[in-house]
Amino acid sequence: MDPNTMTPARKKIILDCDPGHDDAVALLLAHGNPDIELLAVTTVVGNQTLEKVTRNALSVATIAGITGVPFAAGCDRPLVRTIETAPSIHGDSGMDGPEQPESAIELDPRHAVDLIIETVMAHEPGTVTLVPTAGLTNIAMAARKEPRIVERVKEVVLMGGGYHVGNWSAVAEFNIIIDPEAAHIVFNEKWPVVMVGLDLTHQALATDEVVQRIAKIGTKPAKFVMELMDFFQKTYKDAQGFDFPPVHDPCAVAYVIDPTVMTTRKVPVDIELQGKLTLGMTVADFRAPAPDDCHTSVAVDLDHKKFWDLVTDALERIG
Amino acid sequence: MDPNTMTPARKKIILDCDPGHDDAVALLLAHGNPDIELLAVTTVVGNQTLEKVTRNALSVATIAGITGVPFAAGCDRPLVRTIETAPSIHGDSGMDGPEQPESAIELDPRHAVDLIIETVMAHEPGTVTLVPTAGLTNIAMAARKEPRIVERVKEVVLMGGGYHVGNWSAVAEFNIIIDPEAAHIVFNEKWPVVMVGLDLTHQALATDEVVQRIAKIGTKPAKFVMELMDFFQKTYKDAQGFDFPPVHDPCAVAYVIDPTVMTTRKVPVDIELQGKLTLGMTVADFRAPAPDDCHTSVAVDLDHKKFWDLVTDALERIG
Amino acid sequence: MDPNTMTPARKKIILDCDPGHDDAVALLLAHGNPDIELLAVTTVVGNQTLEKVTRNALSVATIAGITGVPFAAGCDRPLVRTIETAPSIHGDSGMDGPEQPESAIELDPRHAVDLIIETVMAHEPGTVTLVPTAGLTNIAMAARKEPRIVERVKEVVLMGGGYHVGNWSAVAEFNIIIDPEAAHIVFNEKWPVVMVGLDLTHQALATDEVVQRIAKIGTKPAKFVMELMDFFQKTYKDAQGFDFPPVHDPCAVAYVIDPTVMTTRKVPVDIELQGKLTLGMTVADFRAPAPDDCHTSVAVDLDHKKFWDLVTDALERIG
Amino acid sequence: MDPNTMTPARKKIILDCDPGHDDAVALLLAHGNPDIELLAVTTVVGNQTLEKVTRNALSVATIAGITGVPFAAGCDRPLVRTIETAPSIHGDSGMDGPEQPESAIELDPRHAVDLIIETVMAHEPGTVTLVPTAGLTNIAMAARKEPRIVERVKEVVLMGGGYHVGNWSAVAEFNIIIDPEAAHIVFNEKWPVVMVGLDLTHQALATDEVVQRIAKIGTKPAKFVMELMDFFQKTYKDAQGFDFPPVHDPCAVAYVIDPTVMTTRKVPVDIELQGKLTLGMTVADFRAPAPDDCHTSVAVDLDHKKFWDLVTDALERIG
Ligand SMILES: [Ca+2]
Ligand SMILES: [Ca+2]
Ligand SMILES: [Ca+2]
Ligand SMILES: [Ca+2]
Repeated sequence: MDPNTMTPARKKIILDCDPGHDDAVALLLAHGNPDIELLAVTTVVGNQTLEKVTRNALSVATIAGITGVPFAAGCDRPLVRTIETAPSIHGDSGMDGPEQPESAIELDPRHAVDLIIETVMAHEPGTVTLVPTAGLTNIAMAARKEPRIVERVKEVVLMGGGYHVGNWSAVAEFNIIIDPEAAHIVFNEKWPVVMVGLDLTHQALATDEVVQRIAKIGTKPAKFVMELMDFFQKTYKDAQGFDFPPVHDPCAVAYVIDPTVMTTRKVPVDIELQGKLTLGMTVADFRAPAPDDCHTSVAVDLDHKKFWDLVTDALERIG
Repeated sequence: MDPNTMTPARKKIILDCDPGHDDAVALLLAHGNPDIELLAVTTVVGNQTLEKVTRNALSVATIAGITGVPFAAGCDRPLVRTIETAPSIHGDSGMDGPEQPESAIELDPRHAVDLIIETVMAHEPGTVTLVPTAGLTNIAMAARKEPRIVERVKEVVLMGGGYHVGNWSAVAEFNIIIDPEAAHIVFNEKWPVVMVGLDLTHQALATDEVVQRIAKIGTKPAKFVMELMDFFQKTYKDAQGFDFPPVHDPCAVAYVIDPTVMTTRKVPVDIELQGKLTLGMTVADFRAPAPDDCHTSVAVDLDHKKFWDLVTDALERIG
Repeated sequence: MDPNTMTPARKKIILDCDPGHDDAVALLLAHGNPDIELLAVTTVVGNQTLEKVTRNALSVATIAGITGVPFAAGCDRPLVRTIETAPSIHGDSGMDGPEQPESAIELDPRHAVDLIIETVMAHEPGTVTLVPTAGLTNIAMAARKEPRIVERVKEVVLMGGGYHVGNWSAVAEFNIIIDPEAAHIVFNEKWPVVMVGLDLTHQALATDEVVQRIAKIGTKPAKFVMELMDFFQKTYKDAQGFDFPPVHDPCAVAYVIDPTVMTTRKVPVDIELQGKLTLGMTVADFRAPAPDDCHTSVAVDLDHKKFWDLVTDALERIG
Repeated sequence: MDPNTMTPARKKIILDCDPGHDDAVALLLAHGNPDIELLAVTTVVGNQTLEKVTRNALSVATIAGITGVPFAAGCDRPLVRTIETAPSIHGDSGMDGPEQPESAIELDPRHAVDLIIETVMAHEPGTVTLVPTAGLTNIAMAARKEPRIVERVKEVVLMGGGYHVGNWSAVAEFNIIIDPEAAHIVFNEKWPVVMVGLDLTHQALATDEVVQRIAKIGTKPAKFVMELMDFFQKTYKDAQGFDFPPVHDPCAVAYVIDPTVMTTRKVPVDIELQGKLTLGMTVADFRAPAPDDCHTSVAVDLDHKKFWDLVTDALERIG
């Protein structure tokens, strides 16, 4: 609680991302929403190489005028598997579509893993939420290097997986399958994990109506988002047959802002590491009520209007 | 073809089963329904040992007065894995509940695998439907021993699997997980496969109303079914938390009788053989429209009333 | 037992093979050696398709004048995996090199699996040795279809595997890796299994001296063997860098004739079914003395001279 | 080369260990040998918990009078798998047998992973050898956190694995199987890796004669080693049936001191991550000559006398 005001304490988050069109929207939502305190932004190989997604993160920060927040680059490859990126969805730059500005922002010299660890350890226990919207390599490395963060983190609200939906294979999602061992580490640590997976994010479609709302805002960041959505719609149409693109990553940020933006269900979730057809599946066991010590939950139904209200509100505030 | 009427040819099926409470109902439905011509009944290890399920099959035949249909015993263990039975659901006999009559019926001397092969090869191509309601060991062995049956069989309508539901693990169903290699063989042969899985059969609940309808029939076979359902309800309540037991196996027979009893969807399905959490999962790929040569489909929604009408009608006809 | 003489009973074998250059030599050795009673020859997909290896088996029988022995074709594909043949070693026909005669021999109408079962069940328990020199699909199918053969067979002396040597992968041998599930079935049944693997057969080289000995025999079958060895040498040189080709399959027959032709060691052996690098490895556990109920042993050291004496002696007897 | 003297530059190593009886001897050898410059000692969970093996490392340092070398603790659990320790071999403390002194040495505050990275980056490229004698968690984490160390390290000389010998399973060795994903990372990076595995270390037996030579030295560290060997002999006899214990870890240090203490062979080696029987196997492919870019080699034959000469010489020098 901030003693100088009567408003509740803002929610402190570390955004670990691989921009990425939807990561960009997630970052803008986190920056523009007044209830979020963005402690740090870290990047990790995923939609594109570490170099590219880090450049993209700094571009978004420049466009949105984000200052005073450390940005740090993390792991340049998954723990065990070889690198797999997603140019079919995000283009060669990882954030194709809009022109990207030169960024004057300097990266924090620390490795993302250390920035995550030091940020968590520097704040009160139970106050920092990790919001990974990419492969979980950085988060897994941080948990292994400094096991004490597991108890100290408030929760991990991640975009990834899907209990009944896959995109990179029949039953696995990109963020999980590109580093399944990292995901196994994250899901098996005893911190609360909220999995905002494809079951939920395929409801977060940027429909024509949504795009028109954003168009009306008329600011430079809003225009940037429109150009992102324009490209994203095309690739999602061509590569996966969607009429409107699902804007995955801001859903995780939206949950932190207001958990009522979606319903969730407590259920044990684990990661398949050996399957030939099921590698990287987030296996949820719905057969019985979740046991009391179950620390994982999955997002189920999205309030589409409330979600896009949050996004457009944030864009309006950024100005 | 019944020469005395103008009705269409009855549907010829081979029922491969492991009675099993629901297998018993499936057998009664197949016997009592006028549109089914039951060519043969074969048994396979599953709910209980081969010896027990074979005895159970003969008991049901005796109660129902089935004559002139060959019954043959098949494989006494899965292809690769060790035997796993289901006494928690079906009791020590595999069909606990009702008292079982002594059966005077003699088994066909042939191995089930040979009976299946010879029956299929003795009928016109495209006329015989295989209806497995157990582990797929016999069917897989038959396909490997006589590959020509694959083209000759009309379709395989099996109870097993689940595209979003498991019972013997988080994502796998009993009939598939007890012999996943056999299931892999059956699903990868190019015959049409209709998977009537848990997604569908968990809708085929024997509710109080259903049981009361069966009670009114008042015949010995109907009383037998009521006693089966009574036991089945108790174990499904205790072992898996169901209020009413899902009566899986007759759903496959019902589909053969009248495909409009359920909706189905064409989708590629394959069997996971390596997964640690997902062994035996029937992995369905819903990401894109099924390709033209897709030969697998899955059952989706059951017409509950129409299904139980078929069952009660069959019981009434058996008399 | 031949009642007219005092000689010991000949050793009854069923040869299950996929000719194959070395299978041909194995068949000639079995036919020509006076201590072997060849009960049946069965074929299975392996070095080439079932059709080709069956034709090859009949060619060898024709050249060697084998009569009164049933030949039957078996499985045309592995249990679970797709077909993999070895044209790089055995050529397009599966037995390239010599010209093949037209064969007047007719196949037994039975499936190999049934011929194996019926032959074993028709002889006294403990008298029939199975000698598989190919993928183990037929043998596995027979054990599953008629489990009683497992107790009835004297032993299984197979060419396949290797405890420290691979050829089709770093640690797996062709006969095992083409149908690892079948191998898993055969090695896990409780009959005695003698694995004559690459550790042993890579000692059975057809050196120049060996070929010269065979050349001196001067008969048509001997000439046939020389032409086989000539082709085999070339492919083994080109594909695997051997100076002289290892003549694998007759080693298993030689062991049945005279176990002192090689040393063996009792050791538990199991088949890896899940490994990415080790699929189909015959995993032997040498860490401790084999337990008393260990039913598997592996061939270690070959008496090269004694082995080739057996082969040349058989060729001389065939005439 | 040190320009001020005519002696060759000492070999700079970082010892990453889990003392462990044989780790203790490895540390004493590294400290006592004049050709080794011990830059850092890091610890990792393995033979016992991180806390215990770290305490053990400091005990050995105290007994040997090691000063000026940073000791740092690293990962307290493997990357993906749960912790497995080896009390059957090393006792409850991880170094049972001798009484352990209180240690006044303070740990370096850095995490082992950072100490490794910073030490490698602080020295000239190609000058620092990593000598892991435990699970490879720290080394793998360092390679992922700072990929530039891979080019900068001279080579990785590790104790672990075995191309034809296992101890913790039929075909896998303890250091590899406790963190196979870490091993996969280390073996797949392109630095030179010399695998000093069980094939070699099972030749490094502490025979009676060896123990008597150490006894004659008469110093406190030598007495300490004798007490270690005394315990080690008992557990290796009881748990694994050895007459004399194989003293694994100093073999890796000995190789750095003088590569002629053993023969090695260049061969591709990779780690099995999926096998049921072969998990953690160091799969070496001996089928063909190693390709030119092969960066892995395996130790084959030990010069037993030369090895123990190095160990006793080091003990004598420590005084
Ligand atoms: Ca992302
Ligand atoms: Ca059933
Ligand atoms: Ca062969
Ligand atoms: Ca060690």
